[in-house]
Amino acid sequence: MEKDLDFVKEITSKEQNFAQWYVDVVRKAELADYTTIKGCMVIRPYGYGLWENMQQGLDRRIKETGHKNAYFPLFIPEHLLKKEAEHVEGFAPEVAWVTQGGSQKLEERMAVRPTSEAIICSLYSKWVKSYRDLPLLINQWANIVRWEKTTRLFLRTTEFLWQEGHTVHKTEQGAEEEALKILYKVYRDYIENDLAIPVVVGKKTSKERFAGALNTYTLEALMSDGKVLQAGTSHNLGQNFAKAFNIKYLDEDQTEKYAWQTSWGTTTRLIGAIVMVHGDDRGLKLPPKVAPVQLIIVPIMFDKTKEEILKKTEDLKIMLDKDFRVEIDARDEYKPGWKFNEWEMKGVPLRLEIGPRDMKNEQVVLVRRDTGEKLVVKEDKLTETVEALLSKIQENLYHQAKKFLEENIREVANYDEFKKTIEEKKGMIKSFWCGNRECEDKVKEETKASIRCIPFDKDKASGKCIYCGKETSTKVYFARAY
Amino acid sequence: MEKDLDFVKEITSKEQNFAQWYVDVVRKAELADYTTIKGCMVIRPYGYGLWENMQQGLDRRIKETGHKNAYFPLFIPEHLLKKEAEHVEGFAPEVAWVTQGGSQKLEERMAVRPTSEAIICSLYSKWVKSYRDLPLLINQWANIVRWEKTTRLFLRTTEFLWQEGHTVHKTEQGAEEEALKILYKVYRDYIENDLAIPVVVGKKTSKERFAGALNTYTLEALMSDGKVLQAGTSHNLGQNFAKAFNIKYLDEDQTEKYAWQTSWGTTTRLIGAIVMVHGDDRGLKLPPKVAPVQLIIVPIMFDKTKEEILKKTEDLKIMLDKDFRVEIDARDEYKPGWKFNEWEMKGVPLRLEIGPRDMKNEQVVLVRRDTGEKLVVKEDKLTETVEALLSKIQENLYHQAKKFLEENIREVANYDEFKKTIEEKKGMIKSFWCGNRECEDKVKEETKASIRCIPFDKDKASGKCIYCGKETSTKVYFARAY
Repeated sequence: MEKDLDFVKEITSKEQNFAQWYVDVVRKAELADYTTIKGCMVIRPYGYGLWENMQQGLDRRIKETGHKNAYFPLFIPEHLLKKEAEHVEGFAPEVAWVTQGGSQKLEERMAVRPTSEAIICSLYSKWVKSYRDLPLLINQWANIVRWEKTTRLFLRTTEFLWQEGHTVHKTEQGAEEEALKILYKVYRDYIENDLAIPVVVGKKTSKERFAGALNTYTLEALMSDGKVLQAGTSHNLGQNFAKAFNIKYLDEDQTEKYAWQTSWGTTTRLIGAIVMVHGDDRGLKLPPKVAPVQLIIVPIMFDKTKEEILKKTEDLKIMLDKDFRVEIDARDEYKPGWKFNEWEMKGVPLRLEIGPRDMKNEQVVLVRRDTGEKLVVKEDKLTETVEALLSKIQENLYHQAKKFLEENIREVANYDEFKKTIEEKKGMIKSFWCGNRECEDKVKEETKASIRCIPFDKDKASGKCIYCGKETSTKVYFARAY
Repeated sequence: MEKDLDFVKEITSKEQNFAQWYVDVVRKAELADYTTIKGCMVIRPYGYGLWENMQQGLDRRIKETGHKNAYFPLFIPEHLLKKEAEHVEGFAPEVAWVTQGGSQKLEERMAVRPTSEAIICSLYSKWVKSYRDLPLLINQWANIVRWEKTTRLFLRTTEFLWQEGHTVHKTEQGAEEEALKILYKVYRDYIENDLAIPVVVGKKTSKERFAGALNTYTLEALMSDGKVLQAGTSHNLGQNFAKAFNIKYLDEDQTEKYAWQTSWGTTTRLIGAIVMVHGDDRGLKLPPKVAPVQLIIVPIMFDKTKEEILKKTEDLKIMLDKDFRVEIDARDEYKPGWKFNEWEMKGVPLRLEIGPRDMKNEQVVLVRRDTGEKLVVKEDKLTETVEALLSKIQENLYHQAKKFLEENIREVANYDEFKKTIEEKKGMIKSFWCGNRECEDKVKEETKASIRCIPFDKDKASGKCIYCGKETSTKVYFARAY
């Protein structure tokens, strides 16, 4: 058993050092690793398999709501990036610049896209001519580069992968409806149902909104260390970019009008969220809907029965392969206990064990990763049992996270209690805020808690701003964030 | 009808100017367009929909042969690119360099990946430890940048999309088998069956092989103008990169050995091949397996019956949607004739027309894009007819291209005939070649024809080198190429 323990021993405990636990799990489960290129990670096959399943679920929702994918250039000439003033100010400090092509110095340097509004809007100004061309609903899956000083695997890296939607509408209302449709019908549905991560949705303050946007809507998720992670954003861009890039259409009334736009994105940092919301001291717990391996078969091998058992596991795999993502771990060099630990580390939702006695009895043992529960299942009930268990695990992960979120949204009586709660309990605090940037800045400075969002469900009640005490009817969520 | 003609009139005829025809079709069918960024294209939703279907077919084959996807960094520090001497020499002239991050000048400039051997090998040297880690079979879908002087949509652009496989093996034979498996079981199967493009396969000469490889295998496709396009390559890298990047494994016999590697890739230029192999003066002809829209429904609308017809087309779409990719063109502002032309331009394999009389007779009209053939089909036979027709169209496109390829592989008696044939008939010429670089260079210089590949199926016969007359048993394919 000593060898079994080693595998887990190398992981820091969550309690002891959450940040180190996170890195240990991401690397040990082979989701991703550092590279020699500062701030750039490699997404390893197991992590990329997870990302592919995530992409599939999100891409389906994006297409079901009428969007099509396209691909825009990686490079953005500096003059284009500068067209929208707030936008360039927001992104310039993070831009990687290409200044040389082959042996030639470029006349104008080019940004490696930190986001694609500028290049996309420059094309939309050519494509959009008439009201008949609208709405224009396009999404892109792409890599993005932002020159970050401190980086963390998945959460903040120089290069990351994302999808970015960019839409054009006839009216202000059209853009607003789109931004909210993405927030609720696409993102929240995907994050809560596929990733089993409950979110708090709302509007960003002007301080926190996207550079160049009119309104930014956000989904905020609570990690199990009590810090919050922004899981996705959807921006109503108003006419800011349409005016900067001259995106106009001829309306039915034969007059030319500036269009209204949105943009929205989610990234590979959601992989980090899955780790931090569901993981424990034994490693990952992956939601079945996106797990690269949903069920791992571990044969219990003895010299005499090895061949028989291996044949049996092959048969089981063929049977289960039709409906589930299944793998067999038939490695000779590790004992079953070591394998159990390794696949728990990798967060595989279900483990199937089968030994000679099970085989004789036409049964297998199933073990749940989320609860550790063991079940003996007859072979002829296997498919239906696996299906039921996977859906139970999916639900259970969501409900555990939901419970944790609800227990960690607090209200406080005054600013002293606010400071104490943030420091000791972390989580989210729902408080009144007067709407002034000054109070927002001061709270951040003094407690490291930022306003994560202004929820839509604000009750009509009013109260005192948590910082300055001014009467207000705006309640917001504060939290320390990634 | 005048408006109908306009749509096609804007396309240059193939005969008159093939290069212009190509650009006209790509832009008019909205596959892709130029951008203001030199050499960079935008892949529009219709073109990207085609690419997604292509990806799906190829990705499935890559996974079925045991490979997994991963994602490696976009940036490659200069010192890594320089590690394999031939490799950097081959790619340096085409590299875009990042020299600045945010407001800081970088200490070492970074290449935007022109291919990923260097970065991937630097990681493999960490990941590969034991013979048990091999074979390591990884693929990546990514964007690539090569600083090209002259560019053409899809065929040669500064940025393009591709997949690149990178594998590590214990033995020389393992790497060789992998390179050939990719060539035949993955690439040829995909290109011939999904894209309906017949290919000639073989080995590249040392002049034409990948910078740093031991052997490059290639698939060469004949475009309908008689020029050849390299459709994909698979490289046996030998131990060149393993030695440069120190990729070693501990073998069963407890000795450390350098590993053997392959890499292989296909790109978005295959979209260009689809256009140039199958297209005609009316536009694209897309193979049904990859067409974003397989069947377009065009209702014939009269004021009195419009609503009824639209309802009917919705019902038909719901029925066909289960098995096929179907759209309805219900636009008011265009006449049916205009729509027919537009969807022919876009290469949709089947058109379904339905008017009031058809509706009364419970029938529809189907029109094939490849032959123009019209069929009246009863509604209750529709699904099976569509299925049969799509598969006939797929086959027909392949057989037409195959016939054209076979008719355009010629043998010639001497170098004068060679020059005349290349100039007047183009296509491929199968000739003896002595194996000397000098003859290869001279033929290229004097005729613009390069050696596309050395086929595997060489008969034992011998003959005289087409250029120098020296006796040889090596026969090769010459052609002018994209």
